[in-house]
Amino acid sequence: MTESIRVRHAALKTFIHGCFVAEGIPEADAAIASRMMSEADLNGSDGHGVFRLAQYIERIRVGGMTKNPKLSVIRERAAMALVDGDNGLGHLAATRAVEIAMKKAETTGVAWCGTRMSNHAGPAGLYARMPLKKDMIGIYMAVGNANHLPPWGGTDMLLSTNPIAVAVPTKHEPPIVLDMATTVAAYGKVKTKAQRGETMPEGWMIDRMGQPLTDPTKADQGFLLPIGGAKGYGLALIFGLLAGTLNGAAFGKDVIDFNADCKSLTNTGQMIIAVSVEAFCDVDQFKENVDQVICDIRASPTLPDFDSVRLPGERAHSVRLDNQKNGIPIHPALFENLQVLADEQGVQRLG
Amino acid sequence: MTESIRVRHAALKTFIHGCFVAEGIPEADAAIASRMMSEADLNGSDGHGVFRLAQYIERIRVGGMTKNPKLSVIRERAAMALVDGDNGLGHLAATRAVEIAMKKAETTGVAWCGTRMSNHAGPAGLYARMPLKKDMIGIYMAVGNANHLPPWGGTDMLLSTNPIAVAVPTKHEPPIVLDMATTVAAYGKVKTKAQRGETMPEGWMIDRMGQPLTDPTKADQGFLLPIGGAKGYGLALIFGLLAGTLNGAAFGKDVIDFNADCKSLTNTGQMIIAVSVEAFCDVDQFKENVDQVICDIRASPTLPDFDSVRLPGERAHSVRLDNQKNGIPIHPALFENLQVLADEQGVQRLG
Repeated sequence: MTESIRVRHAALKTFIHGCFVAEGIPEADAAIASRMMSEADLNGSDGHGVFRLAQYIERIRVGGMTKNPKLSVIRERAAMALVDGDNGLGHLAATRAVEIAMKKAETTGVAWCGTRMSNHAGPAGLYARMPLKKDMIGIYMAVGNANHLPPWGGTDMLLSTNPIAVAVPTKHEPPIVLDMATTVAAYGKVKTKAQRGETMPEGWMIDRMGQPLTDPTKADQGFLLPIGGAKGYGLALIFGLLAGTLNGAAFGKDVIDFNADCKSLTNTGQMIIAVSVEAFCDVDQFKENVDQVICDIRASPTLPDFDSVRLPGERAHSVRLDNQKNGIPIHPALFENLQVLADEQGVQRLG
Repeated sequence: MTESIRVRHAALKTFIHGCFVAEGIPEADAAIASRMMSEADLNGSDGHGVFRLAQYIERIRVGGMTKNPKLSVIRERAAMALVDGDNGLGHLAATRAVEIAMKKAETTGVAWCGTRMSNHAGPAGLYARMPLKKDMIGIYMAVGNANHLPPWGGTDMLLSTNPIAVAVPTKHEPPIVLDMATTVAAYGKVKTKAQRGETMPEGWMIDRMGQPLTDPTKADQGFLLPIGGAKGYGLALIFGLLAGTLNGAAFGKDVIDFNADCKSLTNTGQMIIAVSVEAFCDVDQFKENVDQVICDIRASPTLPDFDSVRLPGERAHSVRLDNQKNGIPIHPALFENLQVLADEQGVQRLG
């Protein structure tokens, strides 16, 4: 069996919700986390949705994550807030931060919320997208949950792939949603190459001598490369300071590898900015202007090796439409693991 | 004569100020623009300081820029404002935007100001640095003043090198100041290579067939490459939407090449975010934590081809110290041009 099994979005959400509740997570929290996780899968971020469910539950079981966190706002001004996630699921703190930012931006025009004592919260794009429904622009940054990147020219892995996501509302076009790590390749892509027995292209990783590393099974002997050399290093550093240090969350040498260590507090930090378009200009005109930019870009002639020019978020949008229609594809190995988890948690198996 | 002439910072500022006033620019505006331009040179951004003086004056003379602009705030909320620069020197609108953002952030914690009808305003880092003196983080983005970048996979040059700059306060260390274009190389670097008769490394530019372009004299037959391929394209697009479209400023096909066209309105857009550290945490503790991150990074062992690991802004900081002590180096050809300009404007020649 090598073909993916297609699972309906609603069924996946119900499944995740059931597993969380069986673990002792309060209904309301399970509802938020299952909504965000299944949404990640719906958008094709398949390394960040239900794929992480067993890992989250394991972290709760061994005491690395709190199953009944009391979220609190520990700093607040008219256009900012700092949410303490009390070491619960990262989706809870990140979602709360976005909601507060959106609420504040309604009156102040722009608002910025940070999180501390949060955890892995799935793909950055999930949170940047939330303000779209209020005709707001969303900007999200996070400290990644494992350091795979040294500073430019160095060999100490002090930085993570610290991502940024920005979502911009549109009128008729799918929204523009940029969602990117500051490294050329995400670490998950390296793992996938290893699983498939493929080599990596030059430019993804280097070894400790600075030479190209193309054998993904030797990934632990090298480092990811930042985009644009020193520039990507600079971005990873800045996003880490804004999403981590500013919030009193872990950054740099304090970041633990959450894949290798389920027990230690991650003290993950994230940040979101909500920008009310209506504060700046006529919302309809803005959306039309963004649509026009999209059309101009799409109309560009292409280079010989390309058959079209795409917009950030275009792939996720088409994957989403396909998944809504045909169900979310779950890799057979993951599907098997989820059935085992279902039995463990005493919830109904998938599909 | 090939060696640069060293000019004192104060003398350069006075010179620029004098040239502007002679052109009919009001004293107060000339004071701001000359301060920002000489500051750019002081920090080693030598393509963005006095180097642009003759071009700005030419633009005023042919009616492409207003010498006596009436700046106005056309949109305002508690945490945002939109400044209309009335087509004056970009330094005026950008400086005003930063000042308003800082003032608002004092109470709201975070504030975002955009500009429209602005013009070229020099290096991004100049404006990101301004909030440092109030223990604030500065984030600045701008729409570049010429399109040299197509969308990824395309050949229509719809995007500029749209830069971002972020400045983060520190305690004992020099501030972290990231100041970068979203392309691998800035277009000015290509021009410099051409002047020197050197070839460009692969990765800076490609031609219309997607092949590496290394002859800088053929730059008009190709395009700059974005950092990280589609990622850098995504960043250039987003920064353009945030600094341009959101503010009602030019972006995409509406951007004119201000080097080739002195007459047309540029309607340049910029944006600044000021973040009050004090709203988030204890300022002293934050600065110490940033210093610690810097020390950890600097202590990293290096790759074979590197002799040290550097922080963003480190080079500019040491150039600044050197220029403060020994004067700002002005290339002989530029120096000659400035003496001609001095005679034209009837101001005292440089040093």
